[in-house]
Amino acid sequence: MKLYVNELNKHVGEEITFSGFVDTIRDKKWVMFVILRDSTGKVQMTIEKSEEANASLLETMNKVTVESTIKVTGKLVGNDAVKLGGIEIVPTTIEITSLADTLPFDFNNLDGVNIDTRLDYRWLDIRNEKNTLVRQIESCLTEGMREFLYKQNFTEIHSPKLIGAASESGSEVFEVKYFDRKAYLAQSPQFYKQMALAGGLDKVFEVGPVFRAENSNTNRHATEFTGFDLEFAHIDSYEDVMSLEEDLLIAGLTKVKERYGDKIKEVFGKEVIIPTKPFPVMRLQDLYQEFHDRYNFDLPKEDIGDMNAEAEKLTYRLAQEKYNHEFMFIVDYAATKRPFYHMRDENGKLQGYDLIWRGTEITSGAQREHRYEELVKNAKEKGLGKDVEFYLQFFKYGCPPHGGFGIGLDRLTMLLLGLPNLKETEYIFRGPNRLNP
Amino acid sequence: MKLYVNELNKHVGEEITFSGFVDTIRDKKWVMFVILRDSTGKVQMTIEKSEEANASLLETMNKVTVESTIKVTGKLVGNDAVKLGGIEIVPTTIEITSLADTLPFDFNNLDGVNIDTRLDYRWLDIRNEKNTLVRQIESCLTEGMREFLYKQNFTEIHSPKLIGAASESGSEVFEVKYFDRKAYLAQSPQFYKQMALAGGLDKVFEVGPVFRAENSNTNRHATEFTGFDLEFAHIDSYEDVMSLEEDLLIAGLTKVKERYGDKIKEVFGKEVIIPTKPFPVMRLQDLYQEFHDRYNFDLPKEDIGDMNAEAEKLTYRLAQEKYNHEFMFIVDYAATKRPFYHMRDENGKLQGYDLIWRGTEITSGAQREHRYEELVKNAKEKGLGKDVEFYLQFFKYGCPPHGGFGIGLDRLTMLLLGLPNLKETEYIFRGPNRLNP
Repeated sequence: MKLYVNELNKHVGEEITFSGFVDTIRDKKWVMFVILRDSTGKVQMTIEKSEEANASLLETMNKVTVESTIKVTGKLVGNDAVKLGGIEIVPTTIEITSLADTLPFDFNNLDGVNIDTRLDYRWLDIRNEKNTLVRQIESCLTEGMREFLYKQNFTEIHSPKLIGAASESGSEVFEVKYFDRKAYLAQSPQFYKQMALAGGLDKVFEVGPVFRAENSNTNRHATEFTGFDLEFAHIDSYEDVMSLEEDLLIAGLTKVKERYGDKIKEVFGKEVIIPTKPFPVMRLQDLYQEFHDRYNFDLPKEDIGDMNAEAEKLTYRLAQEKYNHEFMFIVDYAATKRPFYHMRDENGKLQGYDLIWRGTEITSGAQREHRYEELVKNAKEKGLGKDVEFYLQFFKYGCPPHGGFGIGLDRLTMLLLGLPNLKETEYIFRGPNRLNP
Repeated sequence: MKLYVNELNKHVGEEITFSGFVDTIRDKKWVMFVILRDSTGKVQMTIEKSEEANASLLETMNKVTVESTIKVTGKLVGNDAVKLGGIEIVPTTIEITSLADTLPFDFNNLDGVNIDTRLDYRWLDIRNEKNTLVRQIESCLTEGMREFLYKQNFTEIHSPKLIGAASESGSEVFEVKYFDRKAYLAQSPQFYKQMALAGGLDKVFEVGPVFRAENSNTNRHATEFTGFDLEFAHIDSYEDVMSLEEDLLIAGLTKVKERYGDKIKEVFGKEVIIPTKPFPVMRLQDLYQEFHDRYNFDLPKEDIGDMNAEAEKLTYRLAQEKYNHEFMFIVDYAATKRPFYHMRDENGKLQGYDLIWRGTEITSGAQREHRYEELVKNAKEKGLGKDVEFYLQFFKYGCPPHGGFGIGLDRLTMLLLGLPNLKETEYIFRGPNRLNP
């Protein structure tokens, strides 16, 4: 098994084998310094030119270009003069495992490199320390959240992405040629999470791709991204859902802070703040009033009952100023602005919420309507017909009260690290004009 | 939070609230027994008819059909006469949370129920104890394998399913209408796992959907299933990949055995066997010889250099008879029968393997070709042109030696539990004739 940079300090004084990228070569008169790199850090290799035995090593290294990969055996030596961890590799053999062409741009300095060029060569772009970290941190965040759900006995499901009917709305769905008929790509696992609860699974979650055929180029939208979705049964109200989401986010952020907190501060200049429970909650009407009183801001008429981008930004400001908190739940949205499967109480009040973090909506959650007749009524009211009929069947043969939510995993990571857009956050971005690599 | 059946024994003597499905109602002269069910088990609720205070409870229960859901408050009482765990709920209030219509079939007895009917009503089908367990066990297996990879510092990635070029072969790929152009659905995350390694991530894995536009109706194929894929860098040979796969499977199976071993024996009649390391390895030629000598079986000419279904079955038999083992690695496949990105040595010998378990191939793994020139040559030889050109670029700017494999998660679960086909194993099956629910 490969020895990684972050475990080298346990092997000082030993003969080791090390493989990695050639990060930099400093060819001095009497000595060649080579910095080697792997996903955990960098280490120096030192070749003294005066030693005859090193002639063939130097010959090999003279062929090596920056960003090639090599495999080195040698002695790992402690040396306080070496800035990189006070250790250096003194090699006895060097094998070139791949030779790099001249790179199209310097990934260590991405200022001024066009984002499209970066995405065209994404595998070079993510060699940038910051971008490597984004991947590792998103993985860690997911690990933390999953771990929490496993402890709560959630079952992980994998629902189909190929679906027979254009779900929910009909617009914004990708069409697939499915042998001699049409299929569609799922916009969310919503219906299939709920189906699992109708099937008696009680608590389910899924981490997987969701597809949106939105022909818009904004910083916040992508045609494909990773959803973190969950749903659980036997709740008393949507407040149970909010409570679980608080715990989930705290678990994920705690894991990230433990493993990457210092690194995030150093590289991204961001503090990982573990939010306290409960998160502040405000009614939409009260929020509007605060916007008006504090910030002299009134929502345009067409957005009343809902939020817009400016309102989301102000919500974050308000959360900090009024509650000294990073998160804010908003409740009492207009039912007309929400999907038909969100539950309403006997007065028509929506049993759902949005969660705002750092100026952006990260979740819509709700108690779901599990009563067949009510659901049929709500679907009709929204003008939904045949496409949701299969879904309505799930509720005919008994289904417990339940609720859930979905989080855009990349959006969460973007906000956590203060990244400018999804293009830089997703492993491989997909937008209307971007299908490669 | 809901109290679950499997934690009730800690609450005997207490006032509790319990929510669940109404599994059965036995309405006797003096007493009504109601069996309630959740995802962890069953519990009895007992209503004495002689007690006047119970009149309204009985009135409520008379409206309740089997498979409705109710929420009960009452006292949890120890009673040795009760078969279900020696406890019963004596209710004080009962609330009907959903009323079930008459079910189209009895999910407790699926013998003779057509598989298509079962899939049409999959949310009823998975209420069957066995089918609920399949979901929980697949989740547990995935958890165990992921846990192992996290410990090895693997990074979880989410690669795009929408791709710009029909990868690998061109046939068997679903076509998507992507605004004014065409996209395709990824057949595997292969290229994107490798791209991550070219990007310096060193160790990555992905659990996600893969799509195959195969118009065939077999027990082993589906148009969409869940792949468990990984790839890691700085290996010395494909034997490193085999070794990691051994550890991964042992970790997953150990987790399953610990949590569900007894249940699997009871419900599926299967022993969860933790394989010993190393798994037996045989060269394809030696295997053919053994088939001939032991079983009087010779592979048809067109399959020479590869396997077929009968050969996979015999391999399992041989693994047991010759090695007393459940698994067998097969090496030395013909390079012509394998993808262009599998590495070959200087003699053209393929640096890859298949793994057979219980009569079925569960993995193809290999060291990958990371040398640009070799890769270009192999692609040309297979007649692959423009569609793989973007992929070839990943190897131009340095890429460490690496390898990996993919496992079909549902297939693995199917074999683990001895299920007859993927239709019963996948949460929601997709085949050429099956796009619903």
